[in-house]
Amino acid sequence: MELPSNFNSNKKKIYIYIYCVNISPQSIKTEMSEKPKVLKFPPIRYAEESWSKLSEIAEIVPVTVNSREEFIEKLHGEYSNIVGIGRGYLAGKQVGLFDKELISHFPNSLKYIAHQGAGYDQIDTEALSERGIQLANAPSVVDNATADTALFLILGAMRNFNYGRRNLVQGRWPTGGFAAGAPPGITPKNKTLGIIGMGGIGRATYERVKPLGFEKIKYYNRSRLPKELEQDAIYVTLEELLKTSDVISIHCPLNENTRHLLNDRQIKLMKDGVIIINTARGAVIDEKALLENLKSGKIASAGLDVFEQEPSVPKELLNLPNVLSLPHMGTQAVQTIKEMEEYVVENIYLGITTGRVRNIVYELRNLIE
Amino acid sequence: MELPSNFNSNKKKIYIYIYCVNISPQSIKTEMSEKPKVLKFPPIRYAEESWSKLSEIAEIVPVTVNSREEFIEKLHGEYSNIVGIGRGYLAGKQVGLFDKELISHFPNSLKYIAHQGAGYDQIDTEALSERGIQLANAPSVVDNATADTALFLILGAMRNFNYGRRNLVQGRWPTGGFAAGAPPGITPKNKTLGIIGMGGIGRATYERVKPLGFEKIKYYNRSRLPKELEQDAIYVTLEELLKTSDVISIHCPLNENTRHLLNDRQIKLMKDGVIIINTARGAVIDEKALLENLKSGKIASAGLDVFEQEPSVPKELLNLPNVLSLPHMGTQAVQTIKEMEEYVVENIYLGITTGRVRNIVYELRNLIE
Repeated sequence: MELPSNFNSNKKKIYIYIYCVNISPQSIKTEMSEKPKVLKFPPIRYAEESWSKLSEIAEIVPVTVNSREEFIEKLHGEYSNIVGIGRGYLAGKQVGLFDKELISHFPNSLKYIAHQGAGYDQIDTEALSERGIQLANAPSVVDNATADTALFLILGAMRNFNYGRRNLVQGRWPTGGFAAGAPPGITPKNKTLGIIGMGGIGRATYERVKPLGFEKIKYYNRSRLPKELEQDAIYVTLEELLKTSDVISIHCPLNENTRHLLNDRQIKLMKDGVIIINTARGAVIDEKALLENLKSGKIASAGLDVFEQEPSVPKELLNLPNVLSLPHMGTQAVQTIKEMEEYVVENIYLGITTGRVRNIVYELRNLIE
Repeated sequence: MELPSNFNSNKKKIYIYIYCVNISPQSIKTEMSEKPKVLKFPPIRYAEESWSKLSEIAEIVPVTVNSREEFIEKLHGEYSNIVGIGRGYLAGKQVGLFDKELISHFPNSLKYIAHQGAGYDQIDTEALSERGIQLANAPSVVDNATADTALFLILGAMRNFNYGRRNLVQGRWPTGGFAAGAPPGITPKNKTLGIIGMGGIGRATYERVKPLGFEKIKYYNRSRLPKELEQDAIYVTLEELLKTSDVISIHCPLNENTRHLLNDRQIKLMKDGVIIINTARGAVIDEKALLENLKSGKIASAGLDVFEQEPSVPKELLNLPNVLSLPHMGTQAVQTIKEMEEYVVENIYLGITTGRVRNIVYELRNLIE
């Protein structure tokens, strides 16, 4: 059954009834049960209830393929009339990037993709734009959990906590001396923090570092924030931020403008002994330059939740005592995952019932204007 | 030269002049240069300048002994006329506890001990009280750095960051799955934080956790705080705090009332899956009970900067994936160490020049009243 592109749930019911008048009882049964199809990438960890509610207006089709090839094959077969895709957190592992090539195989029926995450660099928005496919991400729900992660890494990197932790666990206390030999760290007093990217996560990080007592908090952003959001943060150029910050925390999305935003040349502009925190995307920093400058001491210490070629991370980077690293855990919390999963369902639901996802991504905003 | 017990710097100069009138030129030279002696425990890491200024009014005697026995010997010889002791951070390692036994060897000239630290459980205040010796600690200067440490451990323990970090570094990403197999943590939303001890460090911790979004922050303290300090924190009994908190952070001093304040019986009162943070003193918790309840899962996770028998820490405790541990790094920061070292000098200076140290400890407050 071909669905009208501007259907909504009520219209669809009427459509089905009209369509069914002149067909056989067996066909009627089949057609009556036909709802717009929505692909669901497993696993759903906490929002099964929401998906179950969505199933009242949509036919939920779990993605069962084992490879990108198989997925493409099904896009021309079993999935050829899907209307929406709930792109769960393991979709990338299962079928790879939603790049131009994959998108070219999407059926014309597909209108709504809801991505379970704030960053959507795995998805080619230009190709979606050409096809008129809406893409929603899950922005604000990740802000707090990601900012908490940044805060943890800022404190850890400033205070050499990983250095001490490592020496402690390796049995070098007291042989290593006081604090098991970890060099004394720095405190925020008299220091400047620079925030790159003052969207939801950058601002949530700002709220969290305010009580720490940094002398100045500077930020660089696509555009200056209104005063009520900016508060006492100081809007500066990227260059000034790099040159004057003692600690730099990255909170911008990854796109063609921000890939390797921090490369060797930019790092050379920074203060000697700068501290770098990245909870955004690994590729915003040239990881090779990061490693070399950590080894030379130009960068005193780093806190990293993200890496350029995840889940592959250079062993040398992980083994430096002045690097505190996490395996991309910024949103790894029960409540946050649940809210992200529910956001996916909500966006698909609103797409089907109103023709518009709720959280359309910036690059595709014209699709719903 | 025996110094009057209530001397101060000016009185002393006069005393020396009077004393010297009838003695030989050689004696005059010796006596004229004699200033009140102050023992300095090495090393001084950042406050050499302050000690150098103190040397204008005092004779600084570096402690050079290699054992407690040698120290006691010198207390009856070379150190028998000391007026003050600057008890640096390695004094405990060098000569052991300032317990009743050691204090019994202190000369009658000794009036002022300045301890480089907030906690002074290594020092027997009762024995000092009997001898009329003032003890100053370094309280407020450690508040921020210690609270930052607590914040780091709170975030790390709630989010299982050490679990993920460990699996990442051990090469279990991606084999361990998403986040290298670390179980999703919890966020402050809808959760209660309990703070035990609302002195300077507890309050600094409160300031730092406010933006995180805990539903409730409760506290237990010797006495209720005035509203302007308490803010929105809820004053409760220890029992209520233990029974209703999802995360418990300890900020009370160690003394006879707080030793094993949290034992197996108290832990049993807590919620299943409670998270415990300790940046105060290890012995506030019965470490054996802590370990057993971490292994059973009653305590979901812990963040520990302090241990019962430092620097000895049970290997089993360090190796649990749900324990994030640090080798007592709460004040391990350049600026903080410098301020603590300067506090020691300032207290000795004020003792000598005014007869009163500035930061007399609670138990000895009557000595200056």
